[in-house]
Amino acid sequence: MRMYDLIMKKRNGGTLRDEEINFMIKGYTEGEIPDYQISAMMMAIYFQGMNQAETLALTMAMAKSGDMLDLSGIHGIKVDKHSTGGVGDKTSLALTPMVAAAGVTVAKMSGRGLGHTGGTIDKLESFTGFSTAISEQQFKDNVNRIGISIMGQTADLAPADKKLYALRDVTATVDNMSLIASSIMSKKLAAGADAIVLDVKTGSGAFMKQEADSFALAQEMVRIGNGAGRKTIAVISDMDQPLGYAVGNALEVKEAIDTLKGNGPKDFVELCMTLGSYMLVAGGIAPNREDAEKLLADVIENGSALEKLAAFVSAQGGDKELVYHPEKLPQASLIQEIASPTDGFVQKIICDEIGICSLILGGGRETKESEIDLSVGLVLHKKVGDAVKKGDSLATIYANDAEKLEIAKERFLNAYTIDQNPVEKKPLIKGIVIE
Amino acid sequence: MRMYDLIMKKRNGGTLRDEEINFMIKGYTEGEIPDYQISAMMMAIYFQGMNQAETLALTMAMAKSGDMLDLSGIHGIKVDKHSTGGVGDKTSLALTPMVAAAGVTVAKMSGRGLGHTGGTIDKLESFTGFSTAISEQQFKDNVNRIGISIMGQTADLAPADKKLYALRDVTATVDNMSLIASSIMSKKLAAGADAIVLDVKTGSGAFMKQEADSFALAQEMVRIGNGAGRKTIAVISDMDQPLGYAVGNALEVKEAIDTLKGNGPKDFVELCMTLGSYMLVAGGIAPNREDAEKLLADVIENGSALEKLAAFVSAQGGDKELVYHPEKLPQASLIQEIASPTDGFVQKIICDEIGICSLILGGGRETKESEIDLSVGLVLHKKVGDAVKKGDSLATIYANDAEKLEIAKERFLNAYTIDQNPVEKKPLIKGIVIE
Repeated sequence: MRMYDLIMKKRNGGTLRDEEINFMIKGYTEGEIPDYQISAMMMAIYFQGMNQAETLALTMAMAKSGDMLDLSGIHGIKVDKHSTGGVGDKTSLALTPMVAAAGVTVAKMSGRGLGHTGGTIDKLESFTGFSTAISEQQFKDNVNRIGISIMGQTADLAPADKKLYALRDVTATVDNMSLIASSIMSKKLAAGADAIVLDVKTGSGAFMKQEADSFALAQEMVRIGNGAGRKTIAVISDMDQPLGYAVGNALEVKEAIDTLKGNGPKDFVELCMTLGSYMLVAGGIAPNREDAEKLLADVIENGSALEKLAAFVSAQGGDKELVYHPEKLPQASLIQEIASPTDGFVQKIICDEIGICSLILGGGRETKESEIDLSVGLVLHKKVGDAVKKGDSLATIYANDAEKLEIAKERFLNAYTIDQNPVEKKPLIKGIVIE
Repeated sequence: MRMYDLIMKKRNGGTLRDEEINFMIKGYTEGEIPDYQISAMMMAIYFQGMNQAETLALTMAMAKSGDMLDLSGIHGIKVDKHSTGGVGDKTSLALTPMVAAAGVTVAKMSGRGLGHTGGTIDKLESFTGFSTAISEQQFKDNVNRIGISIMGQTADLAPADKKLYALRDVTATVDNMSLIASSIMSKKLAAGADAIVLDVKTGSGAFMKQEADSFALAQEMVRIGNGAGRKTIAVISDMDQPLGYAVGNALEVKEAIDTLKGNGPKDFVELCMTLGSYMLVAGGIAPNREDAEKLLADVIENGSALEKLAAFVSAQGGDKELVYHPEKLPQASLIQEIASPTDGFVQKIICDEIGICSLILGGGRETKESEIDLSVGLVLHKKVGDAVKKGDSLATIYANDAEKLEIAKERFLNAYTIDQNPVEKKPLIKGIVIE
């Protein structure tokens, strides 16, 4: 088999067989097939596409390119949850303790943030001492003992995907649905869960800006997951404005804690209940979504979800006192209100710009090596459809540098469109993809 | 400017500006832009194409990537001739002395053979002592003194093309008309001639198998040449069977000498007269093609073309006695006739297979490093349309190894289709592209 012939076949619109895809991924991972042949192949795939069988084969080949986590030592049905990323997306922080408290086994791999979107691990590090750099054994023990553990993504999980993504990123071959779906799903499959609930974001703050693209990606991923024998469901949710109100690491942790206390923002609670109920059903804890939602309401009501967060934080070295005293989480030194320049209704928020404001303040990473400031960010007070008077606070900004604060503030104001016409609020959940 | 943005632009169907193409070629030649970005770009060009302005800009950028030969010290209008390559294509050997004897200034770069097609330099080395490894000064002096010189292609002529072609060759991005045309023309432009006559082959022994593709390539190259200010004409000629009768280095030299004595094969003479008359007109020697053909007939008739070959061979260190005594050219030790297995008419010859027979005998190069045997090859006696009786010789085979002879013979017979239906002979010249 020669890589040249495979490029030619795909270029001419042919279908790659499983063994051809395996040959390509194995050869590339082992350094026997050079970057320049793979980038030509990726561009050919960009133009000719891949069918469902090819996409599944590519995903499986990448999943198997490194370690496949064996979670069979963990009791119960392991349910994973994955978000395609967005601004103010603190879902895992509240959702995983909720479902764990309700009895779902959560054994999860998470990542760090890059660019305008945050990462769960960064946010969790707001709890002094917390670490996701734990051994596989400790990870499994924690899950068996308290029902929840989150581990940093190890280097050897789907290394082919890592190498391929880095190449696609510099050769303008990222934007292909099959390639995007296989990249995400290869890591999920390698991470070993029995069932996967996907949160596919759509809108100006998401990777997929168009709703049709988000649905297409969801369908592709659900097909891969089910094709690989893992029960997979996708929820398509709005990211045309930040999720909830808080954007920034410790600020989002605080909002997640508020949510576990029953005081969460309406949209964020709705998303947690939707994703959570699918996780409970997939995990065999509830027979249907109605019962599942009741169980989730109970664990908030009776405080067991908040206790689960504390136990989880504590088990990974974090200070659980902060769960009960979030006012002790990292605090910014400069706090200012951003006043509305006019009366009217919020028409639109350029969502990724709000993420960039937090990045500018120091709350995100420009490059993989950047240090981040956990205390900074924004808490919005007005979202799309809200009425606002001139001088009302649109948001509170938390900073540690006066110059950065000014830059972020100006950018924030430019991201908001306010005028006289009332605006209808759009639903948070755009749809569900089951298969 | 970033290469990433240029790939994205072309991928999305955009048009690259001159400065973008210059940036890309300069960066690639200097090693600042990696292979993997260029191969992705080449695949994007394969799918999206390049317009005429982009193709011209790419050609110019590659032509200027190394030395641009300055032929201004040579008197007269310098006319170059280029063939896209074929089997039995000894055209330069007869044509250049003919046009030089008629007064055209021939300052030509030639290459060696690879695979099933031969190269002019290899053939010329059949003259003991002949060398194309001469200095630029000696090259110019020879042209001024005797009107003709042929130099080996120096490494620094269009190095960008050399690097780019090697990459395209392993990434399935060769087959694009703009890229093929710019590759050929960049070397021609760098070689400095004022006018260029192209011989674009078509058929089973040519790089372009389909006539429509050959015309498209011819048009692309003529547009580039004229766009770069060099008068350019293309002749599309048949390569569905070998040109003339001889295939193999010294055997082809002998056929060229016969031709200069007025005893050439009909098709080969026709091609030399056609290309030659365009060269004479482009070189300002004749006012029209009729007068040019008369001049060319004269230089054969009066022996001056043959004398010009002798002077040219001698000026580059070769033994000119061989021009007058071709029986002293390298001789093979094994000579056999290949008998026709049946009566009928030659329907078809798989032309590249005849080239491969010569390659098997040792007359061609499998790789760039192969040594070649100048004496071996074949002389055909029957071509398409010819009547043949069982036992008639289809060809004489010249070898130095009995085993190779048998392999080549079997392959030769498989390349011939003979049956009872008479066949109409097809014209050699398929068309002319002027602009």
